[in-house]
Amino acid sequence: MDESSGPPASTSEPETPRGPLDPLKIPRFAGPSTFARLPRLDEVGRADVAVLGVPFDSGVTYRPGARFGPIAVRNASRLLRAYHPGLDVKPFAAQQVVDAGDIACNPFSIDEAIGQIERHATELRDEVGRLVCIGGDHTIALPLLRSLREQRGPLALVHFDAHLDTWDTYFGASYTHGTPFRRAWEEGLLLEDRSIHLAIRGPLFSAQDLVDDASFGFRIVTALDILSEGIDAVAGRIRERVGDAPVYVSIDIDALDPAFAPGTGTPEAGGMTSREMLGILRGLRGLDLAGADIVEVAPAYDHAEITAVAASHIAYELIALFAADRT
Amino acid sequence: MDESSGPPASTSEPETPRGPLDPLKIPRFAGPSTFARLPRLDEVGRADVAVLGVPFDSGVTYRPGARFGPIAVRNASRLLRAYHPGLDVKPFAAQQVVDAGDIACNPFSIDEAIGQIERHATELRDEVGRLVCIGGDHTIALPLLRSLREQRGPLALVHFDAHLDTWDTYFGASYTHGTPFRRAWEEGLLLEDRSIHLAIRGPLFSAQDLVDDASFGFRIVTALDILSEGIDAVAGRIRERVGDAPVYVSIDIDALDPAFAPGTGTPEAGGMTSREMLGILRGLRGLDLAGADIVEVAPAYDHAEITAVAASHIAYELIALFAADRT
Amino acid sequence: MDESSGPPASTSEPETPRGPLDPLKIPRFAGPSTFARLPRLDEVGRADVAVLGVPFDSGVTYRPGARFGPIAVRNASRLLRAYHPGLDVKPFAAQQVVDAGDIACNPFSIDEAIGQIERHATELRDEVGRLVCIGGDHTIALPLLRSLREQRGPLALVHFDAHLDTWDTYFGASYTHGTPFRRAWEEGLLLEDRSIHLAIRGPLFSAQDLVDDASFGFRIVTALDILSEGIDAVAGRIRERVGDAPVYVSIDIDALDPAFAPGTGTPEAGGMTSREMLGILRGLRGLDLAGADIVEVAPAYDHAEITAVAASHIAYELIALFAADRT
Amino acid sequence: MDESSGPPASTSEPETPRGPLDPLKIPRFAGPSTFARLPRLDEVGRADVAVLGVPFDSGVTYRPGARFGPIAVRNASRLLRAYHPGLDVKPFAAQQVVDAGDIACNPFSIDEAIGQIERHATELRDEVGRLVCIGGDHTIALPLLRSLREQRGPLALVHFDAHLDTWDTYFGASYTHGTPFRRAWEEGLLLEDRSIHLAIRGPLFSAQDLVDDASFGFRIVTALDILSEGIDAVAGRIRERVGDAPVYVSIDIDALDPAFAPGTGTPEAGGMTSREMLGILRGLRGLDLAGADIVEVAPAYDHAEITAVAASHIAYELIALFAADRT
Amino acid sequence: MDESSGPPASTSEPETPRGPLDPLKIPRFAGPSTFARLPRLDEVGRADVAVLGVPFDSGVTYRPGARFGPIAVRNASRLLRAYHPGLDVKPFAAQQVVDAGDIACNPFSIDEAIGQIERHATELRDEVGRLVCIGGDHTIALPLLRSLREQRGPLALVHFDAHLDTWDTYFGASYTHGTPFRRAWEEGLLLEDRSIHLAIRGPLFSAQDLVDDASFGFRIVTALDILSEGIDAVAGRIRERVGDAPVYVSIDIDALDPAFAPGTGTPEAGGMTSREMLGILRGLRGLDLAGADIVEVAPAYDHAEITAVAASHIAYELIALFAADRT
Amino acid sequence: MDESSGPPASTSEPETPRGPLDPLKIPRFAGPSTFARLPRLDEVGRADVAVLGVPFDSGVTYRPGARFGPIAVRNASRLLRAYHPGLDVKPFAAQQVVDAGDIACNPFSIDEAIGQIERHATELRDEVGRLVCIGGDHTIALPLLRSLREQRGPLALVHFDAHLDTWDTYFGASYTHGTPFRRAWEEGLLLEDRSIHLAIRGPLFSAQDLVDDASFGFRIVTALDILSEGIDAVAGRIRERVGDAPVYVSIDIDALDPAFAPGTGTPEAGGMTSREMLGILRGLRGLDLAGADIVEVAPAYDHAEITAVAASHIAYELIALFAADRT
Repeated sequence: MDESSGPPASTSEPETPRGPLDPLKIPRFAGPSTFARLPRLDEVGRADVAVLGVPFDSGVTYRPGARFGPIAVRNASRLLRAYHPGLDVKPFAAQQVVDAGDIACNPFSIDEAIGQIERHATELRDEVGRLVCIGGDHTIALPLLRSLREQRGPLALVHFDAHLDTWDTYFGASYTHGTPFRRAWEEGLLLEDRSIHLAIRGPLFSAQDLVDDASFGFRIVTALDILSEGIDAVAGRIRERVGDAPVYVSIDIDALDPAFAPGTGTPEAGGMTSREMLGILRGLRGLDLAGADIVEVAPAYDHAEITAVAASHIAYELIALFAADRT
Repeated sequence: MDESSGPPASTSEPETPRGPLDPLKIPRFAGPSTFARLPRLDEVGRADVAVLGVPFDSGVTYRPGARFGPIAVRNASRLLRAYHPGLDVKPFAAQQVVDAGDIACNPFSIDEAIGQIERHATELRDEVGRLVCIGGDHTIALPLLRSLREQRGPLALVHFDAHLDTWDTYFGASYTHGTPFRRAWEEGLLLEDRSIHLAIRGPLFSAQDLVDDASFGFRIVTALDILSEGIDAVAGRIRERVGDAPVYVSIDIDALDPAFAPGTGTPEAGGMTSREMLGILRGLRGLDLAGADIVEVAPAYDHAEITAVAASHIAYELIALFAADRT
Repeated sequence: MDESSGPPASTSEPETPRGPLDPLKIPRFAGPSTFARLPRLDEVGRADVAVLGVPFDSGVTYRPGARFGPIAVRNASRLLRAYHPGLDVKPFAAQQVVDAGDIACNPFSIDEAIGQIERHATELRDEVGRLVCIGGDHTIALPLLRSLREQRGPLALVHFDAHLDTWDTYFGASYTHGTPFRRAWEEGLLLEDRSIHLAIRGPLFSAQDLVDDASFGFRIVTALDILSEGIDAVAGRIRERVGDAPVYVSIDIDALDPAFAPGTGTPEAGGMTSREMLGILRGLRGLDLAGADIVEVAPAYDHAEITAVAASHIAYELIALFAADRT
Repeated sequence: MDESSGPPASTSEPETPRGPLDPLKIPRFAGPSTFARLPRLDEVGRADVAVLGVPFDSGVTYRPGARFGPIAVRNASRLLRAYHPGLDVKPFAAQQVVDAGDIACNPFSIDEAIGQIERHATELRDEVGRLVCIGGDHTIALPLLRSLREQRGPLALVHFDAHLDTWDTYFGASYTHGTPFRRAWEEGLLLEDRSIHLAIRGPLFSAQDLVDDASFGFRIVTALDILSEGIDAVAGRIRERVGDAPVYVSIDIDALDPAFAPGTGTPEAGGMTSREMLGILRGLRGLDLAGADIVEVAPAYDHAEITAVAASHIAYELIALFAADRT
Repeated sequence: MDESSGPPASTSEPETPRGPLDPLKIPRFAGPSTFARLPRLDEVGRADVAVLGVPFDSGVTYRPGARFGPIAVRNASRLLRAYHPGLDVKPFAAQQVVDAGDIACNPFSIDEAIGQIERHATELRDEVGRLVCIGGDHTIALPLLRSLREQRGPLALVHFDAHLDTWDTYFGASYTHGTPFRRAWEEGLLLEDRSIHLAIRGPLFSAQDLVDDASFGFRIVTALDILSEGIDAVAGRIRERVGDAPVYVSIDIDALDPAFAPGTGTPEAGGMTSREMLGILRGLRGLDLAGADIVEVAPAYDHAEITAVAASHIAYELIALFAADRT
Repeated sequence: MDESSGPPASTSEPETPRGPLDPLKIPRFAGPSTFARLPRLDEVGRADVAVLGVPFDSGVTYRPGARFGPIAVRNASRLLRAYHPGLDVKPFAAQQVVDAGDIACNPFSIDEAIGQIERHATELRDEVGRLVCIGGDHTIALPLLRSLREQRGPLALVHFDAHLDTWDTYFGASYTHGTPFRRAWEEGLLLEDRSIHLAIRGPLFSAQDLVDDASFGFRIVTALDILSEGIDAVAGRIRERVGDAPVYVSIDIDALDPAFAPGTGTPEAGGMTSREMLGILRGLRGLDLAGADIVEVAPAYDHAEITAVAASHIAYELIALFAADRT
């Protein structure tokens, strides 16, 4: 059927990617809870893009619970369909997309978990071209960047978040959800003068936060800037900042206003709408996207899946950007 | 009392419409659960406008529950007041508005329910000028359009929705909440080149969906278009599209973003705000509105009535448009 | 590790059942969303017991939403562990238990869905000894009984429910969630004088309901009887009623009080506690259990998974009863 | 149809009470939001029993919100059916039961509201035999008792509540939800040594509370007593206490444990179950019930209507007791 | 530590304000529930700014519950930090800010409560420069304005609200949450032609409401105006209106759309976003702010604290404006 | 006033304990969020009993969030009153009870946090006789027992919980919420043959769990035992087991059924009611209670505070037991 979102589940020729279950044969409320009801990695052997769960939240400073983020985002992704009209691309047909399951992280040791995440991501790259990781808290971005740097060298970072996440330590801990990008800069994972924060807002600990952050190579587009400049201008600022560098996109769901993403750990009023987020991402077509994460979805604070639905649509938008590169 | 939203409940002269209960005598949390605490149709005998519940949701493909939509919208409508400052009209005084109760639809047979809805709506037109129907799922739009076509001939359709609803079949079923407007086109209920979708977003099954949809005479204004163009321009596009044709306005509450309408069956991130919706509707003053529906309010997923409040304000805006025509 | 709930996931010798993922290696909030994180049927080829989702709810008369029951119960089952101390048995080691996925049912045709369920269940029995089905609404019990009758002949029915479910028709529909056991009796699926309802309470349509029900071979133990007699006496009444007949256990989650199971479609005050339910089931050890279902979990009305947790523990109790027979 | 819960809605002979809408013709999620979908008082002219809403909550000391109780209880009552098997009676056929709407109480003046309630209740008695009132907070019991005393003389009081409600004043206010029964005693509305509190628990202000309470003629059965003695013994204690006096039954929904009634204003752990409540009420058959109220349902704190469902079943039980007297 | 938001809690020299607890020593989910974890007034003796709770909600006409507003806003304020980058100010270091606790208001007497509020606020001014009051319902604005008028003379009013709050009486009550600003005008508390309403929307009782309102010296900026004009223009209109008069800012949280503030008593669709609110407030730097309130936060209707988080950020913005004046 | 729950807040003679704020002067929804609105430790200098928050949840294996337990329990405790009729004691008058605030625990290091808890508890004992600690997860029981052993020597343990909490390690971590009592036994903190678990239920990892547990000196009373034996018999078993040894009572709120305590991290169906819990505790009067904790209240999963209300009443019961010893 032309309505099908890919070939039948039983075929698996290398040239034709295996897509999600056909929603006209198996209702979307039935069938396995993989992302978008896509095949598992072990079913197809290799993939261009994998969605990978990283259920780790021991790095949070306020509300925990993002360990249940992958379950929630997968479930909310049942509603996704096969064709992206904005980019005129079939993200699951133009490339093989799979669900690579979850990384088993030790919840009692941040250090061990970071190692597990880096190793697992690196190993996956033998089978998978690019990863879209679903957190978990923002701590996970550091090991994912470490793994990606081995493959692609230093990266530009496009970072959507209410918070800078370039603080130094909390309670003596160097690796937390508030520090990944300072560590990343210190470790040489980021390119100079290529990175940008978006949707920043709310109070900081001190003015020094901004001085430090700038010294790590970041520019800041605040949530109010997005309102006043509009999404096309903001997409333009990102493209100009990043240029042709390989880019990692890291999206803390709290970039969205709590109205759009109540299910998160450190909510800040005055955030973006999900429409702005999707519109800006769409404007990034053509960038050299190396990988991405979507973090800080804490389902215990969500309602009617609105946070998880937003996160699953963001993941879909990223996967569509990967596909748009190919077409 | 001049604060009263209509004449005392005990009067019923034909020339003075009977309005809602006086909120300064009977608190708004008391009294019957009719829409806006208006009189029932059987109390006044005839009406210019009737609010009619259509609690049917057996046509849904994902989350059911819109069968409880009429109860929820009526309850949230208790807060409505008598004077609409934006249109400078008293919607319940300029015309007789009533609550016409619910259609009793068979939940176990889509075909029988569609017949019941069409018959009931047609019969009501002996007593009522125009109907604002509260769903229920979007399946109900088809029999409502059938009934209206008998009276007014083919119509222009102004359709707010995240989804096109012009698909063909689901699981072999021709009449579902995803197909009403394809059926309507096939049955000659819609005028050529007069219809328009608004707030469309999210993935489709295939690019063919757009080709088909255009062939049925629809234009598309996406949710991102609304953000970039602004509500006045969008209202202008609708007016231009519709011209002086009789218009049916069909509003799937999922046109709103899940932040504004969590209580719905197939949520899509990136939607409209309720402010945009109300502002665009206000811009339609002067169109020849023949009827309207508001569908897909699923209260089990709502919180603090925010979806139902939005739907009740939308219904009020439509009723005010009817009244504005008269003044 | 002796704490492991089965052999490592990579082994699959026929003599040693493959159990759930080891919770000490993969946290219970990670890994696939199969029931109890057990292997899928296709991973092990055959099984003694399969958990099967039947996401169908088009037979409900009030609140729909049980189509999301299998997703919710699987997710809540992540907390289950390997050893049942009350029965002194390892349910996942004494027998091969798997997750057999969901039946794809047509949500728009009760008749077609009933056929799909019966066929699917019958086909599964080539690979699976016994089924524990997760609904979905109570309509599904009829095709499951039909399928089982072919294998085992007429059955005794142990039915936990607030409602008799032996009504005749609703809106002309013979097959709904209120009628399965009248149909089952009429079709000869049930043994004479061997069946029993438990937790019945609340108002009926008429006194004739009781007369009819008795004529179909049922005894009734009300929710108040359970309070006054205690769980051991009630278990004894079931055992006496059933004798050595093959038994089908059908559990509508609304047998529990709404406090224990808010997430259901037709709640009735005055119900059982989950402790009573688990205690009575434990007292059924030694009966010839042929199959079971747990139905009417409607997650949109649940809170903090309390309904789904109760349902997953009930499923575990049933699986443990199967295992206890073998040891 | 014999399943019908009364004669067709169009008939209204005086000898045959007009019952609820037929649920097999009009689904229970459709139709007007009267209690149990019964006729309104103005439709039938007179009634044996009326359900009357008293949406007043300005007498509460902690969480307000019971003003929305009547709306919530009516909505939850849609699930009630026509035949009570425990008492073998058809409560809506053995007597004419109606919904008498709400009393419009001034939310800004306790004194004025108390007057409005007393007058309205007294006036209703010209048309209605007995009232079951839905609060609102417990303040409303005082004017209801005053009105009833005029008709029946002093009464015995059977009072289910976590709290004594015989305190003196709060913040200088004599009429609040914590004081109605002290006022009632002082005003001579209660018989000597005929009254009883049930489900009392939790801390008091001082030991003097118990001394005062006893001096007003009350006995106390605590929530722990109900657990240890069982419902039959407790019903016996009530019957013995009350004897053949006319009885007013006043049920604060917080008599139930917060698990069974989260939607209330002053929750206390350690309460009754709804099963115990219904069972004890059933044991009161034959008492001379003069009237009843069910108060303190605060829907903003409810979940999935479990509090409102419990309250509507309690109201049904009381109405059935009225009917049982007649048969 | 330079990240600290003030000197250690043990120091209290007059010249260095004592700030919130250090979040890097005491996690933000620990420690006392004062606003922003600031010191109490009794700990520091005097203050430039005090946050004062006014838990009174007996003046509401629809959903009560704002009496729990101060608890909720304080709890949500735990996430606030020390430095405001938008205004480049440290609000808790540039001035001594404290939590002054709650006013104990009589919930059973509006008149007595109004007196208590005025007296308490007036007394506090011996120790505190300016107050940010957390309601409670909007009734409290009147006594706060009365108290402030004694100190500063008549004021300009900047009023964010869905509603005008210049109605006359409800149920004969002159002092309610819908009337404070009519009373304030009548009592001479407001300057002529200096006041402005923002975010007004939704239906009114009658056109006369607008006539009256204008006669009290108000201009209206509707919620749709804010969308079409943008926040900078709106801030400009406020500044122009107010000029150099002393200003009282009164913020009903229902100025925000229900999506952003579900936890409120009289929700109206079509409201502002929290981003717009914060952006407009920021644009008021330099006005002579005399005091402020944030009212109508009703936590029972909130979800995941999104309303309370928005309110706490608004309070922070106001406190930062006070601080910006000083630097 | 004799209704007052203690002397006026301004007095502080050593012989008369300072009690909670007077609820008849300061409404219970106003005033500081200390436990039961009691004075802080720093206000009275010393105390017989202190309620101490331990907001630490980094030892959990499933749902985190108990770090917000102290905030939630304190807030729910606003409803407590001064006199305990069951024990005929005024818990806040017979002894000085205070709120000792929270321990600031490092959320990123279990080891450091355990040290902080032990030190803080030990230091407090210079000023406070006995502690009732509010968790936090069950990890905190170990350092609290260590601290108490120094003072009182080895203890008997009365442990209410769904789980044994005597497992060995998770993911290599020795100190988690599943292991405190194995560690306590190994460290000699517990007396031989004096300890008892209550409310145990649900599956275990292996039968060896029971063998190990017994070897550490525990007896087990299951949740089903409590149902069948009744609360008096169970209290008797505890008393017999404990004898005259000093006792530590550790209450995991998941001992209660999820219906009574949804707000917890590892829910198990089939649990106790809150009435049973309070009744059994009452039966422990006369034991030599050395200290207590109430843990695993995770507010993000709570609804309408029912879990927090239950926990606050349990804390009150324990404090009343301390007081009963003195009288």
